[in-house]
Amino acid sequence: MPQQDLSGSLVLSILIIFGSAKLMAEIFERAGQPGIVGEIVAGVVIGPGVLNWIAPNDVVTILGALGIMFLMFRVGTEVNARELVGVGGTAVVVAFSGVAAPFLAGWGICLLWRKPLLESIFVGAAMTATSVGITAEVLARRGVLSKDSSRIILGAAIIDDVLALLVLGVVSSVAHGQVNLVELVLTPVCALIFIAIVMRWGSWTASKILRRLEQVLRIGEAPFVLTIILLFGLAALSVKAGVAAITGAFLAGAASSESIPARAREQTFAIAEMFLPFFLAGIGLYVKMPAFREPRTLGLAVVILAAAILSKVVACGLGALSHGWIVAERVGLGMIPRGEFCIVAAQVGLMLGVIPADTYAVVVAMAVGTTMLAPPLIDFAFREQGRSKTLEMPLF
Amino acid sequence: MPQQDLSGSLVLSILIIFGSAKLMAEIFERAGQPGIVGEIVAGVVIGPGVLNWIAPNDVVTILGALGIMFLMFRVGTEVNARELVGVGGTAVVVAFSGVAAPFLAGWGICLLWRKPLLESIFVGAAMTATSVGITAEVLARRGVLSKDSSRIILGAAIIDDVLALLVLGVVSSVAHGQVNLVELVLTPVCALIFIAIVMRWGSWTASKILRRLEQVLRIGEAPFVLTIILLFGLAALSVKAGVAAITGAFLAGAASSESIPARAREQTFAIAEMFLPFFLAGIGLYVKMPAFREPRTLGLAVVILAAAILSKVVACGLGALSHGWIVAERVGLGMIPRGEFCIVAAQVGLMLGVIPADTYAVVVAMAVGTTMLAPPLIDFAFREQGRSKTLEMPLF
Repeated sequence: MPQQDLSGSLVLSILIIFGSAKLMAEIFERAGQPGIVGEIVAGVVIGPGVLNWIAPNDVVTILGALGIMFLMFRVGTEVNARELVGVGGTAVVVAFSGVAAPFLAGWGICLLWRKPLLESIFVGAAMTATSVGITAEVLARRGVLSKDSSRIILGAAIIDDVLALLVLGVVSSVAHGQVNLVELVLTPVCALIFIAIVMRWGSWTASKILRRLEQVLRIGEAPFVLTIILLFGLAALSVKAGVAAITGAFLAGAASSESIPARAREQTFAIAEMFLPFFLAGIGLYVKMPAFREPRTLGLAVVILAAAILSKVVACGLGALSHGWIVAERVGLGMIPRGEFCIVAAQVGLMLGVIPADTYAVVVAMAVGTTMLAPPLIDFAFREQGRSKTLEMPLF
Repeated sequence: MPQQDLSGSLVLSILIIFGSAKLMAEIFERAGQPGIVGEIVAGVVIGPGVLNWIAPNDVVTILGALGIMFLMFRVGTEVNARELVGVGGTAVVVAFSGVAAPFLAGWGICLLWRKPLLESIFVGAAMTATSVGITAEVLARRGVLSKDSSRIILGAAIIDDVLALLVLGVVSSVAHGQVNLVELVLTPVCALIFIAIVMRWGSWTASKILRRLEQVLRIGEAPFVLTIILLFGLAALSVKAGVAAITGAFLAGAASSESIPARAREQTFAIAEMFLPFFLAGIGLYVKMPAFREPRTLGLAVVILAAAILSKVVACGLGALSHGWIVAERVGLGMIPRGEFCIVAAQVGLMLGVIPADTYAVVVAMAVGTTMLAPPLIDFAFREQGRSKTLEMPLF
C-alpha cells in the first residue's frame, strides 16, 4: 500500500530525526554547549557519515524547509522594520565586504591547491552566503534580537542573500557557457525593489488589512490562517523576485510584528519548534567521511574552513567597525554560519560537472563546520547579555 | 538549484492548497455548511478534477499525513481511555457489523453489475473502513467528544481499522495468489494486544514517566518535545503492530489526556490546524471527472455511494441500538465517512491489476462522496448539542 507505506516510513523518519536531535541537544546543553550544535551533530551521526540510518531525502528537505521558514518568520516578528532600516547603511557595507572576502579567499586558496580556474571560482562562490538561520536561532534564544548588532546581522544577511544568489547565478551561467547580462542585472534590482517595498509598506498593510479581515471571517482561527497566508504569500513572491523563500518569511514576520495577535504568534512558534530539528539535522546528513581519508583533501578542507571563518569575521567586523569594537565582534562572528546555501551551491557544481566529489565534500565540510563552530562563538560575543535566558526561556 | 527549486514549488503548493482550502471553508461556513466539506471541495477544484493546478504529490501526502496524525492526537487528548473501554462491547459489535455489511453490499452490487468476482470482492473490501478523521473533526468542533455516542464511534473506528486492514490483506493475498494463514491470524491478534496494552497502561506510563522526565531535561520546551516523541513513537509501534499510524497517534493522545501540560497541548493543536487542510484537500485531489461520462459507470458510482452510506448507517446503527435510538442514529451517521483508506485500497487494486480505471474512479467517488455527505449528517444527528460552538470555538 503506497500511502500506508509512506506514512509508516514517514513516522519512523520523524521519530528518529526528531528524537536523536533532541537527545543530542540535551547532551550538548548538559556539556555547556549550544543545543542546536547537538542537533546538527545528530544529523551527522544518523546520516551517511556514521550510522547511515537516514539519507538526505524529500521528507527531511520539506520538513526542514518548513522549520527554517517558520523560524525566520519568528525572528521577523521580533524585529522592527523601521529599526532595521536605521542600520541599513552599515548592513550594506557588511554584506558587500562579507561576500567579496570569502569569494576571493576561496578562489585564491583553490588556485594555490592547483585546482582548475572554474572549480576555484565555484568554491569561492559557494563560500559567500551567510546562513542567517543558525545565528538567528542563537540570538532568539538569548533574547538579544533587538540589539543593534543583531539588526545589522539580519539586515546584512538579507542583502548578502541577494548578492550570493547573484554570484552563484553568474558563476553557473559561466559554467553553462551562456551569460544573460540583462537577466543578471535585472534579478538583483527586482529583488531589492521587492524587499524595499515590503519593508516600507508591509507593516502598514498587515495591520490595516489583515486585522480588519480577521474580524469578518467566519472560519476558525482566522488570525492564524491569515498569518500563514501572509507568510507563504510573501515567501512565494520572494522566490519570484529572485530571493530565497526564507527572506520572504522573515519579511512577513517583520510586517506583522506590531499587529499579530499573541495566540497566532504562539501557534506559528510551535510549528517552528516542531520542524527546526529537521533543518538542523538535515545539514548534518550531508556529511560524508570517506572523502577525507586523503591528506590533500583533508588539508584543503581545514584551510577552506579556516578561511571561511576568518574572511567573514574580518570583512564583516571591519564593515561594522563604525559602531564600535563590541558590535564589530558580534557582527563578524554572527555572519560566520554558511549552512544550506553552500550545500545547494555545491550540489549545483557537482551536477554541472564543475566540481568533483572530493571538492564537494570540502565545501559541505566548510558549511557544516562553520555552522557548528558559530553558535559557541556567538554565545561568547554576547557573553554579557542574558546568560540565564538560554536555560529559562528558550525559543519562546 | 534543486533545494532552492523544491523550496519554491513547496512554498507555492502550500500557499495554493492552504489558501484555497480556507477560502472554500469560509464560503461553505457562510452558506451554513461545514467548513471541512469546503476544504475537500477545494481539493477537487484545484486538483485534476477541475483546474488541474495541483496533482496528488508527496508534499500533499506528507503534510496531510501530519495533519491527520495531529488531529487524531488531539481527539485522543479529549477522550478518556477508561471511558472508551466502558463502551468497548458496543464498539466491537458496531465495528464488526459495520465492516461486514458494506463488504457484502459492495461485493453483491458489483456482481449484479456483471463485474468479475475478484474485482467485486475488492470493491467490497475497499468499502469497509470508516475514516474516523472526518467524524472526529466534526465532533471536536461541536465539543461533543465526551458523549457516549462519540466514544462508541471512536472505539469502533479503532477496531474497524484493524478489521479493514485484515480484509484488505486477505483480498490482496488472494489477488496475489498466495495466502499466508499464520500471518493473517497473527496480524490482528498482535494489533489488538498492542491496542489493549496501550489503552490499559499508556495513561499511567505517560503521567509517571513523561511528567517526571520533563522536570530533569534541560532543553527548551521539554513537555512539547516529549509529547512529540510519544506521538510518533506510538505511531511507529502501531505500524509495526499492523494498525494505521493514526491509531497510534490517537492512543498517544488518549494516554496523555490526563497529564499533558496546557502549553504542549496547544502547540500540538496548532500543528493540526496548519496541516489538516492538506489532508482534506488531499482527498479531493483524487477526484477525476472523465470516468463518469459513461452512464454505466456513473450509475454504478451512485449505487455504490448509496450502498456505502446505507450499509454503515443501518449496520452500525443496529449495533448501537442497545444504547437507544438517538445513540444509534449518531453512531450510524458518524461511521459513514471513508476517505483515505478506500483511496489507498483502490490504488492497491489498480496496481495489482484487479480493478480497472473506471472501477477505481467509482471507489474514489464513493470515498469522497461519503466524506462530503457525512459532516452535515453528523451535524444533524447532534443538532440538540452545542449548535453555537461551530462558530465560536472551532477546533480549539
